[in-house]
Order: sequence, then structure tokens, then C-alpha cells
Amino acid sequence: MGTHSSAASATLPQRETNNPPPAPSANIILRQANHEPHRSWRTWLIGRPLQTADAPHQTIGKAVGLAVFASDALSSTAYATQEILIILAAAGTIAFGYAFPISIAIVILLVIVTVSYEQTIHAYPGGGGAYIVARDNLGELPAQTAGAALLTDYILTVSVSIASGVAQLISAFPALAPYKLVIASVMILLIMLINLRGVKESGLTFAVPTYFFLGMMFLTVGIGLFRYLTGTLGEVTEPPHLMTGLAAITPFLILHAFASGTAAITGVEAISNGITAFKEPRSRNAGITLIWMSCILGTLFLSITLLARHIGAVPSEEETVISQLARTTFDGRGLLYLGAIAATTLILIMAANTAFADFPRLSALHAGDGFLPRQLTYRGSRLVYSRGIVVLALMALLLVILFDASVTALIPLYAIGVFLSFTLSQAGMARRWWKIGHLQPGVEIQEPGSTLRYEPGWQFKMVINGFGALCTAVVMVIFAVTKFHDGAWIIVLLVPILVAGFFAIHHHYRNVAQSLSLEDYGAPPHPLRHRVIVPVSGVHRGTLAALDYACFLSHDVTAVHVSIDPAEVQKIRGKWERWGNGVRLVIVDSPYRLLVEPLLKYVEHVAAHRQPTEIITIVVPHFVPRHWWHNLLHTQTAVWLRFALMFKRGIVITDVPYQVD
Amino acid sequence: MGTHSSAASATLPQRETNNPPPAPSANIILRQANHEPHRSWRTWLIGRPLQTADAPHQTIGKAVGLAVFASDALSSTAYATQEILIILAAAGTIAFGYAFPISIAIVILLVIVTVSYEQTIHAYPGGGGAYIVARDNLGELPAQTAGAALLTDYILTVSVSIASGVAQLISAFPALAPYKLVIASVMILLIMLINLRGVKESGLTFAVPTYFFLGMMFLTVGIGLFRYLTGTLGEVTEPPHLMTGLAAITPFLILHAFASGTAAITGVEAISNGITAFKEPRSRNAGITLIWMSCILGTLFLSITLLARHIGAVPSEEETVISQLARTTFDGRGLLYLGAIAATTLILIMAANTAFADFPRLSALHAGDGFLPRQLTYRGSRLVYSRGIVVLALMALLLVILFDASVTALIPLYAIGVFLSFTLSQAGMARRWWKIGHLQPGVEIQEPGSTLRYEPGWQFKMVINGFGALCTAVVMVIFAVTKFHDGAWIIVLLVPILVAGFFAIHHHYRNVAQSLSLEDYGAPPHPLRHRVIVPVSGVHRGTLAALDYACFLSHDVTAVHVSIDPAEVQKIRGKWERWGNGVRLVIVDSPYRLLVEPLLKYVEHVAAHRQPTEIITIVVPHFVPRHWWHNLLHTQTAVWLRFALMFKRGIVITDVPYQVD
Repeated sequence: MGTHSSAASATLPQRETNNPPPAPSANIILRQANHEPHRSWRTWLIGRPLQTADAPHQTIGKAVGLAVFASDALSSTAYATQEILIILAAAGTIAFGYAFPISIAIVILLVIVTVSYEQTIHAYPGGGGAYIVARDNLGELPAQTAGAALLTDYILTVSVSIASGVAQLISAFPALAPYKLVIASVMILLIMLINLRGVKESGLTFAVPTYFFLGMMFLTVGIGLFRYLTGTLGEVTEPPHLMTGLAAITPFLILHAFASGTAAITGVEAISNGITAFKEPRSRNAGITLIWMSCILGTLFLSITLLARHIGAVPSEEETVISQLARTTFDGRGLLYLGAIAATTLILIMAANTAFADFPRLSALHAGDGFLPRQLTYRGSRLVYSRGIVVLALMALLLVILFDASVTALIPLYAIGVFLSFTLSQAGMARRWWKIGHLQPGVEIQEPGSTLRYEPGWQFKMVINGFGALCTAVVMVIFAVTKFHDGAWIIVLLVPILVAGFFAIHHHYRNVAQSLSLEDYGAPPHPLRHRVIVPVSGVHRGTLAALDYACFLSHDVTAVHVSIDPAEVQKIRGKWERWGNGVRLVIVDSPYRLLVEPLLKYVEHVAAHRQPTEIITIVVPHFVPRHWWHNLLHTQTAVWLRFALMFKRGIVITDVPYQVD
Repeated sequence: MGTHSSAASATLPQRETNNPPPAPSANIILRQANHEPHRSWRTWLIGRPLQTADAPHQTIGKAVGLAVFASDALSSTAYATQEILIILAAAGTIAFGYAFPISIAIVILLVIVTVSYEQTIHAYPGGGGAYIVARDNLGELPAQTAGAALLTDYILTVSVSIASGVAQLISAFPALAPYKLVIASVMILLIMLINLRGVKESGLTFAVPTYFFLGMMFLTVGIGLFRYLTGTLGEVTEPPHLMTGLAAITPFLILHAFASGTAAITGVEAISNGITAFKEPRSRNAGITLIWMSCILGTLFLSITLLARHIGAVPSEEETVISQLARTTFDGRGLLYLGAIAATTLILIMAANTAFADFPRLSALHAGDGFLPRQLTYRGSRLVYSRGIVVLALMALLLVILFDASVTALIPLYAIGVFLSFTLSQAGMARRWWKIGHLQPGVEIQEPGSTLRYEPGWQFKMVINGFGALCTAVVMVIFAVTKFHDGAWIIVLLVPILVAGFFAIHHHYRNVAQSLSLEDYGAPPHPLRHRVIVPVSGVHRGTLAALDYACFLSHDVTAVHVSIDPAEVQKIRGKWERWGNGVRLVIVDSPYRLLVEPLLKYVEHVAAHRQPTEIITIVVPHFVPRHWWHNLLHTQTAVWLRFALMFKRGIVITDVPYQVD
């Protein structure tokens, strides 16, 4: 409550626009409040409030678009290889030979998903997230399922990326290991703050770290491959301790490792959500960016896996595979090594940051459709969905703490949601092609997310999306089965629960809207009689003020005193004679020393005998102390009374506050 | 909310006593509520509610009186000797020779205190606690100081007694050692529950454990002394490990050990607090009981110290001195040994229980005088000061946890408060004799706690009490100085802080009472005009109900809508045309998307321009969902609005609740 801002707002008088241009009737008046919020610790923390009209509208080109949308996908190369190796380690280092073939399978999957999403981008130029595609083509239940899956996945993106980022840092500076959790928590809170500020993210903010990462990674991988081909790339020196098992190399193990590696594909859907951010022709630009991104992702992922295998990198919580690779390529922990680690950490933080843009937007979309609390649609003082941002940060923080910031522990929860939404989105696309194939040429159908018109060759496109849906569905099942015990069961349980919750919320909102609807609303009978009840605990200025007000409202006023102390009753009787203004005082004896309940009983008794045209108002004298903590010194019966009366029908509660100086 | 009790209360209709015998005026009506509280988990835990009229009034004789009031004092023999030895151990076992002389000094102090309190008991037949004596004779500040000292000491009585009780148990069953804290916590909570039930404590409840303890102790000490005199008492076998130091035997060390031993005297004041509980002639009965108690206490304490020294008992956290003594006297851990330990544990629990009677009563006394929150005077459903009981239990629990249930760690906090209150009480008595000595014979002065009339020999009595005050003051200083570093500083700091808090509370209450006083109260000008403002977030049945009510209250109604969404404004305008009932609607634009603040500004604007005879009422449509958790799905602006408006003067807030089925 800085005096500075009070003064500032005082110089902005409220103008009452007596003659607003479009006012259709004289009894509607428009006012400009221009009320700027008070300066407080919040202003300091997240910046001065922004007007709604300040919302930015800018579009970006392909190069910046890649930087903005690719961090989530690209950053997964920082841990995907390592997670494959960790699973294979159960069968000893000999199983590491399977890492590269598994990676090739994952890249094939990446190609399928990319081609499939390429079609989505052109079909939904207004943005084709899984939620929208599923809602338009498959119905409410699949749409909510896709949404629930994506929301949980955004939370996990934050947890996994930050956990991996911290792991990179610790690889470079092992002395930080004991502060793992603290560093991860501080990072999440900082990203939350930055997003609450809602900095107008210039393309530069994204371009610098993303292209820094790409530069450093291609340098690492390039030099690595060059030395590999020229035979000068040695083995990793002093690798961290490896925990291997003696399990057999079964198909299950291979599928398990494959499932871990699919984390590499997460984030591919990001561009299809953000098509509107691109310059026109936006579908074309977004589509080209998607292809670029997938090529880079595939190349990096394959190269890293190949080199990791060659140098004998070892999956470990102490040092990441990326760190071992950079250390071996650059011959030690020099400047280039540090650059590679810094770039990896940065891109991981950027990936987490992406989730902070996606989660609040998606949850606001759900909330706007009435499937999540409406408050999530409210944009805070900095024009961002602040509540969604805070919810995301808290959930991610909880996960990081519960799983001790371990990527390996978090991975089994990750990706399953992504593949579920992939599947639903592509199945929705396939269904859309089928609908299009059955339209008459020339007919146009406008759906909320896109426009349908007949297209030749729809069968081929349907097959592409259908095949994509099938592949991702199979991967999802593989993931759920092989990783069920490791933690996937949490998501398998959670998603249906979330979906059920979404529908329960929707049901509630629809219910309320129906109950309050003015259709067939007959005005209630006009009230004729007004009974006023004033609970009094004692006779003093506060209660007399309430009594005055009550007498002003109606001539039918009853004061009620609940007595737990006979001495008090005598005092009140005496004072009432003098100050009671002739009002009827009912003294209710309370042998069990209860205060609220006897009063409630009395009110119920009166309410039970009222006529339909009778209104009952309870006028409660309410003591307002100067400082809130003074409340600890007073039995605030008024508060309890109001709380109890709120649930009684047709009883109006009036607070007559009395302040004390 | 058992159905049984609802049915029961339905059969007890509220009788409206239209013709009450003492009703002085027709407009005061007495009603019997007979509203029994609902059955709930509380009923199960602490028993069915009691009527105020059920409060027990019974008096007790000397034998039972000893049992009721002596447990606190007698139980301290369970740890006083040990605490002396622990301090002496710093100078090696050779220093143990000082234990017996120190005990003799403590017994002399006990005699002085007893004689002094004997006079208090006869002077204050209505109960002469330190608080009352200091208040009547020394003034408010010493009285509050005595009260603060006693209240902290009651908390410590619970902590120390329970810690010692658990130590006895562990001595007998060392396997329980790891569960020390759990056992102590459960004990405190159980005693709290028993006191919340407020069992009508028959004399038997107290007599059995107290006389069992006395029997077992005199048996132990008797057999011990007999064997000592006949030369058959050996040394303690397998004594616990002793941590001795190499400190010199300085006067400081001796005084330090003496200070620890004074814990034996705590509890002597109990009888003077409870004189009213005795049968008539109550002062005489109480006085005789006090002398008995002191004799028993002195004898036991001296014998235990003597024998402990002889058998070479060693102070330890593993096994108590009492356990070592009983084990040596009874030659091992037989039935008699177990009996002695059980009796000691029991009496310690009884001592804690005494504090549960004293603390709530004293805090209610303070609260009644307006020095503690008034809520402490409220007697719960079982007619006990339930809030005081819970506060005591929580504080004692906190101490036990903080100090890891160690008697030695707690002792430095203990006793200093007792000696402060001893000093104030006896100084108050001395002052009282001085006042009596300066009265004219035949003149009587009625003080709140006692009656003053001239007595011959007042000089002698004044000297006795004055000497007592001096001795206890010296002991208090010794205690504070020698134990300052060990923890006494906490109390030295805490007592003044508490006293300051008491006066702050008192100041607040006096302030409020003055502000609300009806003296010189001129009735305010009669209101002539009534402006009603109805904040509306949308137009629906709920807001229309509020609007109807508002129109019923006044013809000057303004509805206010704060707009953060232009689309919403169009909808509301359309609906207002049809349903607005001709009421003026002000639409306040909120560019910063704030809801409450622009409304507040508007209300302030209206309030600033009002006439003295104008009342402003805000009629808030308040959505009440069926289940409280539905609130999470609604932005309850009404709640925030009321909270913000509460602090504005002269604005009445009316809730028109609308429920949804």
C-alpha cells in the first residue's frame, strides 16, 4: 500500500461518462475506473500491472519459431540415451549393444509422428492441439482424456527437464550434489516468477539458448564423429560407477529400454499447438519448422547414442552421459566442455519454461469449456494465467521433491501421457479425413477448430494419420506394460481420475447455470412483511447501532440474547429497559453453554412459521477490531452464526460492523 | 450429527415462557432452549455434554485433601535428589558428599515456606493463590508477574513430571528407551483427554495413587534405613555409567546443586490455592494438611538423599536414582521394586494432572480480569475450561519434544517461576500485615480476596512472611544466576514478555469497553435516506433475488457491474433491459482486470458524498454451493468484498444467499 501509488491513482479521477456513445437505455451508465492496483511486494516481484489492451500480438518466422517451439523436443536428447542405457544395464554392459538399434526404431517412430503432425498443421491453421482435434472429431470424452494426459505431461516436462538440468550441473560440479533438491526447487520457483512477470518474450530470448545449444551439440557430436572416424576418440576416462545386473536380454527388456527412449519424441507436438504464432503463410511455415526440428532431433539423438556406445559411456546419477561424451570429445573439463554442459542445462530450463507457457494456456482452455475451475481463465496483473502458472510450479515441485530430483525415477511417469495424446490427436485426424471423404464437393462445414471441405486423396491422408495413431497407441501400450511397476501405474490411474474430475466439474457448472437460468423465470411474490432478528451478546454502542439499523428496516424487530450466565442476564435486562427502544428482547437460556446453536434453533423456529410473503433478515452486530490479530481476543460469534445461517434458505444476513478506535 | 440426538432434541420443544415470574417488562421474554449439542466424535471422546447446573460442589477432609493437593509436592522427591547429584558429578563422585547437607538446607527452606504459607491459608480462607494475594496487596503488576510465573510453572510441572515418569518406566523396562518421546506424548494427551472429560474426581481417584506412593516409598525408605542401620545395605549393583568431570568444588557449584534441589519444594503452594475445597473449618483443615504434607515431603527427601549417597547411586538418564535405591533395598527387580517404580510413575502422572486443574483455573481467572483472551473463561461441554486444558497440553508437549523428555534439561526452566510467585505471595502477605497493623481496631476493610481487621501480634507475622519472602527471593536469584546458561534465561526473558502481553491484552479490552460504553451515549441522528448498492457479476436468478431484496429495502438502488470482458458487458446490457426492473446499472470498466478494487472505489466515492442521515447498504448476492468444496470452483468475490468493506465505517453489508440444488 505504497503512498506513491495512492497519490498516483488519486490524480486519476473516476470519470462518469454520462453520455456514452452506445448506451441503449438511460439506466445503464458506463464508468472508467482506471483503478491501478496498489504497489506491493507483488509489484516488486512480478512487475507493474498491465492493461488488458496491452496484450501483445506478434508473429514469428521459421528460425525464431524453431527456437521457440523446439526446446522441449531437442532437450530430451539430454537424457533419452542415458535412460535407454540404464534399462539395458540390468543385463550387463553387453546389452548396451542394443542401444543404437533401439534408437533407430525411435527415430522411425519420430518420422511417422512428424508426417502425421504435418497433416494436422495444415488442417488446423488456427492451432491443432490434441485437445482441439479430439474435441472436434472424437467427442468430449477423448478430448478431455487428451487434455488430462497433456496436463500431467506438462507437469512432468518441468520435473524431468529440471531434474536433468540439475544432473548436468552436478556432472560438471560434483560438489553441488548435496544441494540437488534445493537447486531444482529454486530453478522451478525462478521459472515460475519469470512466467508470472510474463516478460514479453522476444524471439531473442529463445533464439540465444536454443541456437547456443544446437551449436554446442553439433560441435560436440561433430568433433566426436570426426575423431571416431579418424580413430582418435578414446574411451571415457574414470567413468562413474556402474550398477549392472545379470538379467537375461529378453524382448521385454528391449521393449522396456525402447519405452524409456521414447522420451526423446516428447515435445514434437509443440508446433501444432502454436501455429498461430507463425508469420503467414503460417501452416506452411509451421510445417517446414516441424520438419527441420525432427531432422535435427533425429540426427542429434542417433549421434549421441552412437558415440555414447563407442566411448563406453555409463548411465549414472553421478555424471550424465552428455557430460561423459563432452568430456571425452573435448579431452577433459575445459571451456568447450563447460560450454556444452551450460548449453544442455540452458535448453533443459527452456524446455521447462515451454511447459509454463503450455500448461496455463491449456488449462485456461479447459476451464473456459467448464471442465476445470473457472478461476484458471483469469489473467493476472501481468496478463498471464497466473493461477495456472502457480499450480504447475507447485505440482512440478512436489514431483521433484517426491522423486528426489531423479530423472530415472521420473521417466516412467513421463511420455505415456504424450503418447496417449498423440494417439487421440492422430485418431481424430483420421476420423476428420473420413468425414471429409464423405462430404459433397463444394459443401463446407465449419467446426470450432477448422473448416471441413472435400479433398481428393483423403484416403491416403487418413491412412497416414491412422497408421500414426496405431504406432503411437502400440508404443503407449508397450510403455504402460513395461514400465507399469516403475511408476507408469500412477499415470494409468491418474488420467481416468482426472477425466472423471473434469466431468464432475463440468456437471457442476452446468447444474449451476441451469438453476440460475432466467428461462421460465417467474418473478417471486412481492414481499409484504419483513421480520428482523438481532442477536445481541450485550447492550453497548455496537449492538445499539445494529438495533437502530434494524428498526429502520422494519417495525417487526426482535432482539435475541443467548444466556449462559445468569448474572449477565440481569445486567442486560437492566440496560434493555433503558436502551432497548421498546424492542422485544428474547432471552434464550442455554444450559449447555452453547451460543450459536440455540440462536439457530430460534431462527429456524421463526422461519418455520413464516408466510410466503415474509422476509426474514438477521441483523448481526459485527465487531471489527483495528488489527486483525485482535480477533484472537474476541469470540466472533457473528462469524460462526453467518456461516451456519448461510445454508438456510431464504434468510438474509446483514452485518452491521462497529469499529473501535 | 447422530440421528439419535436430533430425535431427542426434537422431543424437547422450545417452551416460550410467556409469563416468567421475575419479568419486569413485557418486552423481555425468557425462553428455555434445552438445546443439547449434537453427538459427534467429541461426544465419543470426552463424553456427553453437561448442563451448567450440574457443576459439582463437594468438600473434602484432611486425608483426602492431602491426596488431592500433595501429589505435585511429593512427586518432586522422585527427581530432586538425582538433580542435585547430576550437578555435583561435574566435580567427581567426591562432591556427592555435599548432597546431604544441601538437602538439609532445602528442608530448612521448606520449613520457612510452610510456616509462611500457613499464615496465608488462615488469612485467605477463600483461596490464597499468589495471584490473589499479590493483586490485593501489591498491585496489578506484581499480580500479573506472579500469574505469568505460575502459568509457565504449571506447564513445566507437566513436562518435568511426565519426563520423570517416563524415566522411571525406562529404568524398570530399558527396552522402552527408544520410545521415550512417544510414551511421554501419549501420556500428556491422555491426561488432556481425561481432563477434558472432566471426570467428577472422587477423593478415591486421588487417594489410591497418593497413598500407594506413600506406602511404597516409606516401605522402601524404611527397609533401606533399617538395613543401613543394621549394616546389611550394600552398594548398588551394576550402576549406570557415570559422566563425571574434574571441576573444582566451588561455592558456585554447591549453590548450583542447591538450586537444582529446590525443585523439591515446588507444589507446596497447591493447598493455599485450594482452601475452598476443604470441609469447614476449612482454614484449619487446610493448614493441618499443609503441615502434614511438608513433614512427609521433608522426611522422604532427606531419607532418599541419605540412602542414595550410601548405596553409591549414580545420576543417569538411563536409570533413575529412585530405581537404583529400590533395586538395592529390595535386592533386585522383584515385585516390591516394580511396586515402588509403579507408585513413583503414578504419583508423577498425578502431579501432571494437578497442573491440568490449576492452569485452566488460573488462566480463567486472568481472562476474567481481562489479562488473557476472554475465551479462556468459557467452560466447554463438560463444564471444564477446555481451552486452557488444550493450551496447557500443547505447550507441555512442545517442551517435552524440544527438550527430548529429559528431566535434567527441563529442570533449569523449572522452579524459578515457583520461587518468583512464592516471593510475591509472601511479600504480599507481609504488606497485608503492615496494612492490618495500621488499622483502627474494629474497622473492617473488605478486599476482593479477604477481609482486613486489626490483629495484635501483626509485627511478628509480618516478620515471618517477610523472612519467607526474603529467603525465596534469594533462592530465586541463586537459581537465575547459577542456571542462567542452562536454560533459566528462557524464563527470565519469558516472564516479562508474558506480563507485557497480559497488559497489552488488558489495554485492548479496556479500550474496547470504553469505546462501546453507553455512558454519555447520544443516540445517532435518525437515518432518513437509504442508498443500496448491489454488485452484480452477471444477471441470473441469484442476482435478481438480491435485486428484489434491495428494491424492497429502498427506492434508491444502484447495481454495479465491474467489467473485465467486453463480451460479457454486451450480454449483461441485453439482459438488464429485460430483467433489470428499471434499476440503474453502473458498469465500471476495469482495465487491470481487478474485481474488488474498482467496486470498493465506487463505494468509497458514494460514501464520500453522502449526507449524515444517509445509510449505505451493500446488498451482495452470495452464491452458496451445496458442498463447501464447490467453493473451489467459484470466484467468491462476495467474500473478498465483504472482507474489504468491513473496515469501512458506516457501511452495512447484506448477504442475500442463493442456493443451488
